[in-house]
Amino acid sequence: MSGAGDDCALLEIGAERLALSIDLSVGDVHFRVSWLDYREIGYRAAAASLSDLAAVAATPVALLVSLAASPEWPEDRTAEVMEGVGEAAASVNAQVVGGDLVRGDRLIVDVAVLGRLGDRPVLRSGAVPGDGLWVTGRLGGPGEALRAWLAGETPDDAARERFARPAPRVAPGEWLRDRGAHAMIDLSDGLWPDTHHIAAASTVACSLELERIPLHASATDARAAVVSGEEYELLVALPEEFNHAAEFTGRFGLDLTRVGTVAAGSGATLLADGVAVDPPVGFRHFK
Amino acid sequence: MSGAGDDCALLEIGAERLALSIDLSVGDVHFRVSWLDYREIGYRAAAASLSDLAAVAATPVALLVSLAASPEWPEDRTAEVMEGVGEAAASVNAQVVGGDLVRGDRLIVDVAVLGRLGDRPVLRSGAVPGDGLWVTGRLGGPGEALRAWLAGETPDDAARERFARPAPRVAPGEWLRDRGAHAMIDLSDGLWPDTHHIAAASTVACSLELERIPLHASATDARAAVVSGEEYELLVALPEEFNHAAEFTGRFGLDLTRVGTVAAGSGATLLADGVAVDPPVGFRHFK
Repeated sequence: MSGAGDDCALLEIGAERLALSIDLSVGDVHFRVSWLDYREIGYRAAAASLSDLAAVAATPVALLVSLAASPEWPEDRTAEVMEGVGEAAASVNAQVVGGDLVRGDRLIVDVAVLGRLGDRPVLRSGAVPGDGLWVTGRLGGPGEALRAWLAGETPDDAARERFARPAPRVAPGEWLRDRGAHAMIDLSDGLWPDTHHIAAASTVACSLELERIPLHASATDARAAVVSGEEYELLVALPEEFNHAAEFTGRFGLDLTRVGTVAAGSGATLLADGVAVDPPVGFRHFK
Repeated sequence: MSGAGDDCALLEIGAERLALSIDLSVGDVHFRVSWLDYREIGYRAAAASLSDLAAVAATPVALLVSLAASPEWPEDRTAEVMEGVGEAAASVNAQVVGGDLVRGDRLIVDVAVLGRLGDRPVLRSGAVPGDGLWVTGRLGGPGEALRAWLAGETPDDAARERFARPAPRVAPGEWLRDRGAHAMIDLSDGLWPDTHHIAAASTVACSLELERIPLHASATDARAAVVSGEEYELLVALPEEFNHAAEFTGRFGLDLTRVGTVAAGSGATLLADGVAVDPPVGFRHFK
């Protein structure tokens, strides 16, 4: 979901607190159809939307899927897209409850998700001066895959896998909420731009330390990794005293790395060995 | 929403019973962009999705909107589409709570809706032999507008209005539920095809009487009116003893007309002066 607000719309219905989000993927805009198989296209579209629920620590319940497919497609190709959607849903114990299938000349997958909020949602706006900024996983894989494809190369398997099959961090998001997370966002634009979203929503200053950025095996450049988009990892502001990273890794098999600090002020700063450096120029977005 | 099932997915979360649906509109597939203004495009996409809630007698609460728009569009054109969506939402006291805006070469509006079910949903599957089949409003306007456009003519204002600004029949749907409706569907494919959906879901036979079809002012041919799609009127199976049509019209300023009968058996029959006639050939769907 886009917008200056949070990753999800939050809604109270009766005694229930719900989170809703929607994510539109358009073939040859968000991905080249030739990069992925049809199952991956469905999986990835659903994972992007489920990641929005992870970012507010909501428990996914239901997905609705709109799919436009070429009239020339064989039936089973549509089924493959839907299998991928179903696989992403099943990975977080949610269900595809409905959808709309239309004919069109462009592959479109739009996924709306509904989740249940627990005790409290974690918003972008809760970061306070003194918090540490932490990130799940290792960054730069999707950006490296995109770089390779756009250069006419074949990305290595690990980078391709990170692009094609991002895991929505639902259980890690709930765990981080329970450990006192103040603010959270999923990395769809990239660590650097999404850090700005936390800073703006929380009216605080955020700094990132380049040498702390955990790099994916296929990535070598921290400055590229901080603008690698569609990572779907979580960026989380945790109280200074947080010291459960090893427990997190033991539980989820996933790194949790402190990459920066929240302070009074505004905006975001990128530091290399303690010195502010220019932000990376441009984002490697596929047009 | 498409599919052999109901117009909405029905979901229980805690003590709440919810209805969800999604409806994808793609420019130059579902409508030619030149036929409508941008506000109407947004309104119509939202109304189609809200009509699914009306068909199960759910009360609309929230809408999510995915919008893909050309990068060459001025900002205010995107705003016009969203104003139309907001207008449809406001007409049934619901709110647009979030969305996703992306750039693309094709106008796409996908609207997911969430509603609350009252005492009971009205499904397609509840019709029983002896029920009367009733339809709200007057039919044939959208079909006549489509016919005119496809013939290179300009539709009259009343037909164009029915195409551009269908009213989701939310309050009428709730009222019909409270008066004992057994089954309901909104007319998106058209009266004749949607009657088949009721017959199939309820495992009953349905007959429609051509001379009873209430025709819109711009329509002259009942056989064209029964395949006029995107009417977004309600087709409802009501107990034989139902006799509140005048009260309905007084309340909603809308016709409620008995058009047929439910019997034991299967399938749908079209009757002219009591004699079965061939169904209309083909549907006037815009390709």
